[in-house]
Amino acid sequence: MVSAMSTNAPAHPIRLHRFVRSGHSHRVQLFLSLLGIPVELVDVALDRGAHRSPGFLALNRFGQVPVIEDGEVTLADSNAILVYLAGRHDPAGQWLPRDPVGAARVQVWLSVAAGPLAAGPAAARRAVVFGGAIDPRAVAEADRLLALIDGVLASSRFLVGDRPTIADLAIYTYAAHAPEGGVSLERHEHVRAWLARIEALEGFVPMAPSPIPRTGGGDVSG
Amino acid sequence: MVSAMSTNAPAHPIRLHRFVRSGHSHRVQLFLSLLGIPVELVDVALDRGAHRSPGFLALNRFGQVPVIEDGEVTLADSNAILVYLAGRHDPAGQWLPRDPVGAARVQVWLSVAAGPLAAGPAAARRAVVFGGAIDPRAVAEADRLLALIDGVLASSRFLVGDRPTIADLAIYTYAAHAPEGGVSLERHEHVRAWLARIEALEGFVPMAPSPIPRTGGGDVSG
Repeated sequence: MVSAMSTNAPAHPIRLHRFVRSGHSHRVQLFLSLLGIPVELVDVALDRGAHRSPGFLALNRFGQVPVIEDGEVTLADSNAILVYLAGRHDPAGQWLPRDPVGAARVQVWLSVAAGPLAAGPAAARRAVVFGGAIDPRAVAEADRLLALIDGVLASSRFLVGDRPTIADLAIYTYAAHAPEGGVSLERHEHVRAWLARIEALEGFVPMAPSPIPRTGGGDVSG
Repeated sequence: MVSAMSTNAPAHPIRLHRFVRSGHSHRVQLFLSLLGIPVELVDVALDRGAHRSPGFLALNRFGQVPVIEDGEVTLADSNAILVYLAGRHDPAGQWLPRDPVGAARVQVWLSVAAGPLAAGPAAARRAVVFGGAIDPRAVAEADRLLALIDGVLASSRFLVGDRPTIADLAIYTYAAHAPEGGVSLERHEHVRAWLARIEALEGFVPMAPSPIPRTGGGDVSG
């Protein structure tokens, strides 16, 4: 499957500007790997303010990773990059359905990724990994969102039907790494099974783990 | 332009479940009107909790407006609905480019709509219109985002190139109604010119205005 798609891989590697502990960066790295596209990783030192340099702002005026460069195309926003890669490098249309209903069902999850996923599991993890303290409000939002996703996955192997799409990739990283923000996946058995299904895909690459904080309630899976 | 597209309008009206003061609902109503598609509006009384009823949750497990019903298709999430309508009812592909780069450039703004627009201008307006008090943090986030959008529109008639796309519709409503949350558009002249360009499109329908709050700084355009 992956090898068939990689016949459409570009002749040159795609350059990915990323931060090694950014889940937004990881979702792009994961998709490039699943598509079998060679990648040139460029580490952006967010911790030293490199994303606010004039050079980086010329790549992305929002000052955020990830950014890709694919020949003449420079593109930011992880969701947008997933859409671009699916359109250009997945000719079978497996990862982003071309029909209006399928495309819209994927879009629902790209909106979730940019909204409640960012405000929930991603914010909870950021508070711990980069701030050193648990953010109870973000943890509560993450719990609500993961319960909802668990309900969807109770009757569906992937977020949109029985095959993986970019919807799964947009949600995967911050769901998988939610425990690093003090968010337990214990109660969400369908989410855990779905994470394992993604991790079993040929070409899967993980994001480097960060330590899981201790919480008072014994609620963290460790 | 609109009349040519409306030849692809469905035989039956599209049912739109909406809340009259929801900008997310308005962006869908606006696109339906621009496409010349007949619409059956169903008001959902969010203020009386109608979005948490079992009947409504069966339409959208997220419990949010808007939701559309187009024959057999039921769909939630305003961005997803814009993608669906563009794919199904805009055969020329004017509103959502089909090429990977164009589609990705639109996706950037759908992500902004679900993320910083929701956390900035939409949250600022919600605090005032539904809570009665200005939220300084949301106002500050709105200011930052609008300055950035103003920079984009300094060299582009619309958010993605010289013609309107669903990117503009996803951003329009909460930008236009930002003053209702205590967010001034005074400094953002390119944003104001762009709002006027959208309001001049054939088929434009406005969202009902809410009162503009008084602020201490004389910074509100009134």
